[in-house]
Amino acid sequence: MDDGNTIRQRFGSRVKDARKAKRLSQEGFADLCGLDRTYVGGVERGERNISLENIQKIADALGLPIAELFRFPDAE
Amino acid sequence: MDDGNTIRQRFGSRVKDARKAKRLSQEGFADLCGLDRTYVGGVERGERNISLENIQKIADALGLPIAELFRFPDAE
Repeated sequence: MDDGNTIRQRFGSRVKDARKAKRLSQEGFADLCGLDRTYVGGVERGERNISLENIQKIADALGLPIAELFRFPDAE
Repeated sequence: MDDGNTIRQRFGSRVKDARKAKRLSQEGFADLCGLDRTYVGGVERGERNISLENIQKIADALGLPIAELFRFPDAE
């Protein structure tokens, strides 16, 4: 189900879109997540093979269920 | 959003249910995933903080979109 865009990139851009929809800066968002800002930046750029527990932290900070972060514009 | 049951445990039991629904043995399923059987067993028992790419391998092996693996019976 890999359309060239890796799951890291698809997840990263989904997180970035959701963060922006909440008008959160990357820094403010990282604080909310309890994660390092450079780490969050790497996730959004699709550079991180993020773990399940960090996915949960990101979903909680966005106030979204995790499933929502895997609903991609180009449905799988 | 943590009801005592960690995200590892909730994800693990969701994967186990989906595997059983497909009548796959843990061994056959691990082969399909391209992952080690003991690793998959650990994921199902909620012992593994699984990474995004391994989540994608598991979803692909089950023929499900990743979002489906985060749809829990006790909705978040």
